[in-house]
Amino acid sequence: MNAKRVLSGMRPSGKLHIGHYVGALQNWVALQNDDGYDNYHLIADYHALTTNLDTSNVEEDSIEMTIDWIAAGIDPEKSPIFRQSQIKQHAELYLIFGMLVTANRLERNPTLKDQIRDLNIKQVVFGHLGYPALQAADILLYKGECVPVGEDQVPHVEITREIARRFNNHYGEVFPDPEPLLSRAPRLVGLDGDAKMSKSLNNTVLLSDPPETVEKKLRKAKTDPQKVRKGDPGRPDVCLIYSYQKVFNSDETEAIDADCRSGALGCADCKMRVAAKINDELAPIIERRKELEADREKVRRIVIDGEARARETAEATMREARDGMKMGALDV
Amino acid sequence: MNAKRVLSGMRPSGKLHIGHYVGALQNWVALQNDDGYDNYHLIADYHALTTNLDTSNVEEDSIEMTIDWIAAGIDPEKSPIFRQSQIKQHAELYLIFGMLVTANRLERNPTLKDQIRDLNIKQVVFGHLGYPALQAADILLYKGECVPVGEDQVPHVEITREIARRFNNHYGEVFPDPEPLLSRAPRLVGLDGDAKMSKSLNNTVLLSDPPETVEKKLRKAKTDPQKVRKGDPGRPDVCLIYSYQKVFNSDETEAIDADCRSGALGCADCKMRVAAKINDELAPIIERRKELEADREKVRRIVIDGEARARETAEATMREARDGMKMGALDV
Repeated sequence: MNAKRVLSGMRPSGKLHIGHYVGALQNWVALQNDDGYDNYHLIADYHALTTNLDTSNVEEDSIEMTIDWIAAGIDPEKSPIFRQSQIKQHAELYLIFGMLVTANRLERNPTLKDQIRDLNIKQVVFGHLGYPALQAADILLYKGECVPVGEDQVPHVEITREIARRFNNHYGEVFPDPEPLLSRAPRLVGLDGDAKMSKSLNNTVLLSDPPETVEKKLRKAKTDPQKVRKGDPGRPDVCLIYSYQKVFNSDETEAIDADCRSGALGCADCKMRVAAKINDELAPIIERRKELEADREKVRRIVIDGEARARETAEATMREARDGMKMGALDV
Repeated sequence: MNAKRVLSGMRPSGKLHIGHYVGALQNWVALQNDDGYDNYHLIADYHALTTNLDTSNVEEDSIEMTIDWIAAGIDPEKSPIFRQSQIKQHAELYLIFGMLVTANRLERNPTLKDQIRDLNIKQVVFGHLGYPALQAADILLYKGECVPVGEDQVPHVEITREIARRFNNHYGEVFPDPEPLLSRAPRLVGLDGDAKMSKSLNNTVLLSDPPETVEKKLRKAKTDPQKVRKGDPGRPDVCLIYSYQKVFNSDETEAIDADCRSGALGCADCKMRVAAKINDELAPIIERRKELEADREKVRRIVIDGEARARETAEATMREARDGMKMGALDV
């Protein structure tokens, strides 16, 4: 009865990789299968605009991502999947929330600073500065009580809480005080070993990669540079393949650690062992993906349906918000 | 056939004063009665939030302002009157436009700097910074080609033009390149002679003031401090009453100038002469206001109707914009 409302989402990045899977999707599925939570899944296509104005693939990318979400275990009947841009109430609440947070407060957002540095942004656009206000609207439109986030996203949730309180102080109790649901999910390193897994760095294993592709990609992955051939003693703690073993092959990590250090286990074998485990994990996902790919119209209908349901919840919230502000439709 | 679309609006400030009338409304009515223009009139209730979060009177103030607009000659059948907050497309386009203008560009907006100084604002809210992006949405949602503005508003129209061009460059030609329609309408000084007429300074003559109130208010108005009694030579150029004579009694200003300087005309008489002219001007407005006040339901219906018509135009524009961005509703 008192399931907590959870809002989670991603930017529409097309086909997802195993980093998305272990870092977020597995957690979403766990929350979905827990009666204590009621989930809404946002395709954050407006957020994508903050750093990329090219929208030519955004629809296709949204559909591909939806396929991966469902293939990974999201049940869209239970948890609506919807594109932010199609629920106009996001824009409406964002505009209102923009009046409740100072520009200075948003300039101090650490994620913004990281993005400016990482993307080498010369001039921040206004909408990028306002990203946490839009995120506050995303969460509070569904009266989100929990937001599954990594440590780095906690400051955003804090801004959401500030905005919710300020609205409630001015216009009456409409919004909950959402809590970050800290995930301790691992962040996967990319196949290059240099950075986190990311499509733009071309260092990913996709959820949709067939077994031979996974093997091929892993075969080329970096390992401990000091271990040149089987027999050489390796250092699991500097090896990205070992970090995958910990995630996908946790039962065998102790043995692998020992055999790597002793030299008994060579890198090629080690890679194929984790590839097999990853492929086991991906097999049912790929199976479900095939069905969905064969009926893309069905996927589109799922999103259209999710949008209708999300819109209903969002509009109910906005009616309360507008009533509180006395800025609703006129009656006669 | 090729009437130019004009977007004009005001914040919902309740009952209007004669400064609004000579500074804007007379011009709006002239544009309405010119077949070369097609007018939309915006009640800018979201803009009001940028400097005042108290919305308790915003609906009533919007209705009062509508009554004054119509009483002053706006024909809502010809020119829709609508509240910004009720056309959700304003928020949608504002969000998109926020991606097309840098925060720095908005920080350089001279009106913002003036408001920060005049209102003694310590911390600018995000939505206040974004005011010109919202104004761009207000104008371009109706494909406004002309914007009647004073000199001080020209920089806003320039930002609107920049945003329109940037959108069109990225997503195809959707928006016109709107031009400021510079009004040389006088800006009335308030009854205190210190500042422009403004309700918050309590120095106004309202459009709805009955003749005896107009006379009473003018009687208390400041005149040239060097002219203490009739017979003293006066200086019309420092006298606010003379500035009203120029606006409301232009036929007689030459004679009044001479008689003030010679001392033949005393301030009390001078005030009553302009009061009579103002009252002549206000008489038909007050008459129409009485009819409207007697049927407030009708006024509400007028606004509801204006909102329906504005929404239709706005949605047609947004469909084009969303198509250009490929961020529209999914079809199957």
